[in-house]
Amino acid sequence: MNSTPDSRLPTPGAKSEMRPIKDTIPLEEARQLIADACAPISRRERVALVDANGRAAAADVQSTRDVPPFSRAGMDGFAVIADDTFGASRYEPKTLRVIEKVYTGQVPTRHLTPGTAVEIATGAPMPAGADAVVMVEETEMAGDRVRILTPVYPRQNVGRQGADIVVGQTVIRDGDVLNPSRIGALAALGIGEVEVYAKPTVAILSTGNEIIDPGQALRPGQIYDINKFTLSTIVQEHGGVAMPFATAQDTIEALEAAIDACVACDVLVFSGGSSVGERDLILDVIGRKGEIVFHGIAVKPGKPTVFGTIDGKPMFGMPGYPTSCLSNAYMLLVPALRSIGRLQPRHTHTVRLPVGQRIVSTTGRHQFYTVRIVDGLAMPAFKASGDITSMSQADGYIEIPAQTDIVEKGQIVDVKLF
Amino acid sequence: MNSTPDSRLPTPGAKSEMRPIKDTIPLEEARQLIADACAPISRRERVALVDANGRAAAADVQSTRDVPPFSRAGMDGFAVIADDTFGASRYEPKTLRVIEKVYTGQVPTRHLTPGTAVEIATGAPMPAGADAVVMVEETEMAGDRVRILTPVYPRQNVGRQGADIVVGQTVIRDGDVLNPSRIGALAALGIGEVEVYAKPTVAILSTGNEIIDPGQALRPGQIYDINKFTLSTIVQEHGGVAMPFATAQDTIEALEAAIDACVACDVLVFSGGSSVGERDLILDVIGRKGEIVFHGIAVKPGKPTVFGTIDGKPMFGMPGYPTSCLSNAYMLLVPALRSIGRLQPRHTHTVRLPVGQRIVSTTGRHQFYTVRIVDGLAMPAFKASGDITSMSQADGYIEIPAQTDIVEKGQIVDVKLF
Repeated sequence: MNSTPDSRLPTPGAKSEMRPIKDTIPLEEARQLIADACAPISRRERVALVDANGRAAAADVQSTRDVPPFSRAGMDGFAVIADDTFGASRYEPKTLRVIEKVYTGQVPTRHLTPGTAVEIATGAPMPAGADAVVMVEETEMAGDRVRILTPVYPRQNVGRQGADIVVGQTVIRDGDVLNPSRIGALAALGIGEVEVYAKPTVAILSTGNEIIDPGQALRPGQIYDINKFTLSTIVQEHGGVAMPFATAQDTIEALEAAIDACVACDVLVFSGGSSVGERDLILDVIGRKGEIVFHGIAVKPGKPTVFGTIDGKPMFGMPGYPTSCLSNAYMLLVPALRSIGRLQPRHTHTVRLPVGQRIVSTTGRHQFYTVRIVDGLAMPAFKASGDITSMSQADGYIEIPAQTDIVEKGQIVDVKLF
Repeated sequence: MNSTPDSRLPTPGAKSEMRPIKDTIPLEEARQLIADACAPISRRERVALVDANGRAAAADVQSTRDVPPFSRAGMDGFAVIADDTFGASRYEPKTLRVIEKVYTGQVPTRHLTPGTAVEIATGAPMPAGADAVVMVEETEMAGDRVRILTPVYPRQNVGRQGADIVVGQTVIRDGDVLNPSRIGALAALGIGEVEVYAKPTVAILSTGNEIIDPGQALRPGQIYDINKFTLSTIVQEHGGVAMPFATAQDTIEALEAAIDACVACDVLVFSGGSSVGERDLILDVIGRKGEIVFHGIAVKPGKPTVFGTIDGKPMFGMPGYPTSCLSNAYMLLVPALRSIGRLQPRHTHTVRLPVGQRIVSTTGRHQFYTVRIVDGLAMPAFKASGDITSMSQADGYIEIPAQTDIVEKGQIVDVKLF
């Protein structure tokens, strides 16, 4: 025997201590229990406006200025008193004296009086006294006079001061998720920084004596870590900050130390320990350090999932198998993370397609079933939950509800694209 | 007069030099002309696997190893010779001698012979001679013997070496866009870096004498730059690297110098100069430095858009009005940028809703019309193309085709969410 006794594996007489999963809970119940344990983040931080896309604003932003800050010409042409143009036409133009020329970025110095006009560029401030702009195409210059060929009404072709935003107006509300145009609205106020909710930090930790990091040579019996990479990627994609920790060995002591190191994060995600003995370890450790909320979900893959709280922080114990781990990340972690981070629920891009062959599912378990799209058909891509290519070679997945056991060939399904 | 002569504004006798937009081209034609001018990027770079999400792989990746690298137990239990278990049942168990115990991450040292078994943990390498695993729940230990309560067939509960990936298999293809599971597949090979196509660099430059950056105090006649922020944000969101340049003054010399500074980028996006005189400047400069492809699109807002190429680089001359500029970025720049960056077309999340009031559109111009969602109805949010709040206070937009002039209240539309 090349090994020392260890509580992870069933040993003679120890069978009654094993806790194989007998009662799984439905997916919806699991999601609800997780949601109940996940409060939206309250920590705030200030970020540069250019880095604020996709972030949730952490305070209302009221404007301290009007936008535009002055009334301005909406067209190249002539600022006029509208009243002077009434009755103008190509056959009977009104003639006005041009007293100034104002470029964009400049300030008019003259006051319009009846019978006068100011030549003006789009965006330049309106001269005092003027109340409309005649577009240049409706005018003819002649020396220092301009012939107005069409009437304008008051405020025509004028961008009024504050037409876009007025002083005191709420431009962004607490909780608004910033996007390009909202960032533009803040830029319009001259704001260079914005207060946002912090991104939740997510501790990511693989457990298992056989798991090693890339860059090291594989020794016999070892495999490269997959879950640390898939989980980090999906966490970043959904508004979290991935905090990968060193892989922990399968002992109570190592797992307790790992939890102590991780618990400063907002969310803890461990993977591994999906087998009976190892799962007991994770259960024991959560039980000692915090509270187990559930253990075992009626999903496929991903059944041996543990969820609990430690110091009030949600902790996911994901199966070690890469596809189980990642499919559970899509189904459980992503909704929780987005809610903690105050983002909208994930928008999955869905295509409706017929399945290309009959799929037999497991009754009583909600199935996350990966598919490839081939010639407009959803073809099964699932191999085994231990195989990352079950997902990496798929285009998306379908969900088969617990009460459905067969999806017939040709049946239309919603394929959620990765 | 507080200004010096300048060719930007129409001056007496200069009217024939103005080039007001007479012929606009349809949106689809504009998109096609842009597509024709935009080649997918060929520059490559290496990035860490953790930073590779959303990037397009720039080479096939063939596996240099099997995954898993050894045949392993798929369950906690006993590695056996399947033949030894045939006929086993709870009433007539088969009894085997346990010769070793193998934990995950360890290597078996013994060779199975008929009548023997090895206690094994999920993920541990299979001992030589064994061809199946009996799950622990189907066994009973008694001293150094184990009673097998159910038969297994060869390979049952065994993860075969190479079942996920075999040596030589193409795991990622040139052009595949990396996502969490594809990053997982690369991690499985122990790869820490991946070759991807470079992100296209996009020069972003606002033009206009009145435009200033945040952090400076507004002087009369000045406004804060909005487009630099909206464009930078949308460029980053769609796989580009935003390279904001200093705002250029409205002179031929300043614009030429700006183009010279920008042309090292893959794409050039200027905004401003949407008025007749200023637009002439941009046209002149593109004409001198490169080639004008079109000038004027039958869209609303965004009609005065220029597109050309300089040193073979696509150059967009966007209107200065923030909503016109950003709506054109959604309709023209984003598809071009994603295609240059070798990403899939943008997935817009669309909701189908009735419009809450009659919308009168402009016949002959494809309209980008922003809406707010209120009580399940799409309500108009568009104010004016100069108003960034036309977009920042909207939830999304509808597109009204050029040949449609009225959308009746209650009509169902596709709202594309921002």
